[in-house]
Amino acid sequence: MEKKPLILVSNDDGITAPGIHTLVKVMKRIGEVVVVAPDGPQSGMGHAITIGNTLRLDRSLAFSDVESYECSGTPADCVKLAKHHVLRDRKPDLVVSGINHGSNSSISVLYSGTMSAAIEAAIEGLPAIGFSLCDYGHDIDFSHTEEYVELITRQALEFGIPAGVALNVNFPKKSEQEIAGIKVCRQARAKWEEEFDERLDPRGRSYFWLTGNFVNFDKGDDTDEAALAQNYVSVVPCQFDMTANHVISVLNNDWNLNPNAKPTIGSKSKEGAEAEG
Amino acid sequence: MEKKPLILVSNDDGITAPGIHTLVKVMKRIGEVVVVAPDGPQSGMGHAITIGNTLRLDRSLAFSDVESYECSGTPADCVKLAKHHVLRDRKPDLVVSGINHGSNSSISVLYSGTMSAAIEAAIEGLPAIGFSLCDYGHDIDFSHTEEYVELITRQALEFGIPAGVALNVNFPKKSEQEIAGIKVCRQARAKWEEEFDERLDPRGRSYFWLTGNFVNFDKGDDTDEAALAQNYVSVVPCQFDMTANHVISVLNNDWNLNPNAKPTIGSKSKEGAEAEG
Repeated sequence: MEKKPLILVSNDDGITAPGIHTLVKVMKRIGEVVVVAPDGPQSGMGHAITIGNTLRLDRSLAFSDVESYECSGTPADCVKLAKHHVLRDRKPDLVVSGINHGSNSSISVLYSGTMSAAIEAAIEGLPAIGFSLCDYGHDIDFSHTEEYVELITRQALEFGIPAGVALNVNFPKKSEQEIAGIKVCRQARAKWEEEFDERLDPRGRSYFWLTGNFVNFDKGDDTDEAALAQNYVSVVPCQFDMTANHVISVLNNDWNLNPNAKPTIGSKSKEGAEAEG
Repeated sequence: MEKKPLILVSNDDGITAPGIHTLVKVMKRIGEVVVVAPDGPQSGMGHAITIGNTLRLDRSLAFSDVESYECSGTPADCVKLAKHHVLRDRKPDLVVSGINHGSNSSISVLYSGTMSAAIEAAIEGLPAIGFSLCDYGHDIDFSHTEEYVELITRQALEFGIPAGVALNVNFPKKSEQEIAGIKVCRQARAKWEEEFDERLDPRGRSYFWLTGNFVNFDKGDDTDEAALAQNYVSVVPCQFDMTANHVISVLNNDWNLNPNAKPTIGSKSKEGAEAEG
């Protein structure tokens, strides 16, 4: 019998969230599972790591039949602790994160704790997938995601994910229609249009809740947003090189960063600015 | 007289850190300055935002002659609150973040609170620069950065930064040698090789400190690491589209994500895996 692949599971909603329990259920069909997940919600943590504070890591009772640990840190901390402590003598064949309660499509990939776990794994040289369901409800139905999670995971193990890449997989909310299929996409150009809900506390001092609406500026039909709108599962391959390569020549040609070998302050600025400087 | 540009200043080391005071000092030579910065250290916060908790925003006494606010949230929160609340009737001409106490070159851009403020500004459609000094000492000398901060800022205001791009500027630690100049670079392929320092608390329960060494795998001479090693100021243009575009065709060609219109689980997996499924 073939050796079962070793699959590390994490998330950002915490080890008791229904999403990670769905993910573990599917992963158990495929391989040997180890869970290292936050001990509480870590949504919106982006790629945060814990450097000014200590970390706790304890065996968890969240899963009766799976080796699992809960960690006081962020999703990125969980992956680091899993790789360098829990699994220091073994190498996972795949890291999966989620299933997130809520969308991580488009620009949300930057704020996402779910995807930070997957991207941290990619930085560590491990193939990784983050799964998210575009549903913010309290009693989310994950059942329609299971066969797709299994299909994508099996294909990742069979065909591999290119080095340095993590997949950002988003599922449409369960609807009357069946899921139309899977589309490989690019990240849509979109943003959250913030509003701050300012309130007064019982002592009369103001505080804010962050709220906002998602705005998609991208009319392309090859984006994750377009795929999700058409009831497809979106798969965006993500990398951690943030260089805007096309801008390097712009800065070298249009700017004047080294006027002489040594910079002369204000040498190319307008007279008004110079007078103020 | 020309209207002074409006410059929003933030950071991740908190509003009392010497680095942001150096940055404000330089920005006051160039424009009108408004500061919205964290009320305490937020290093390593990556692109975290505060969604499960409330935010405070108060006028700050950290700067005697500059309109300044301290915020209980992350650097990304600060920029959001600045744009949508403090400056809701005005548009900054530039957002600057830093000067960070420590390097944000290469892969550190992902973990960096300093750069998350700059990248959040870029998402908001504002030109932005993050400045960092590769020095982790307690009494950092920022004096050698000032003329370069001023030069780069004036050029950004004069020539503009392409939409959706934030500059990641890193300064070498002050050394005997003079700074060699400024180089526009790409992000080096590197990672932090973590080690966890496990200790026992007074009650005998274990806890961890994250430590680690920076490892540069990248031998290219066009990277930020190479520039810094040669005593240059590195400038990496950063974007927030994380799509690994070159992998889209790999997944479409090599994987089999839509075997029929509807996926057939395990249809292409090996027999062993199928038997286990």
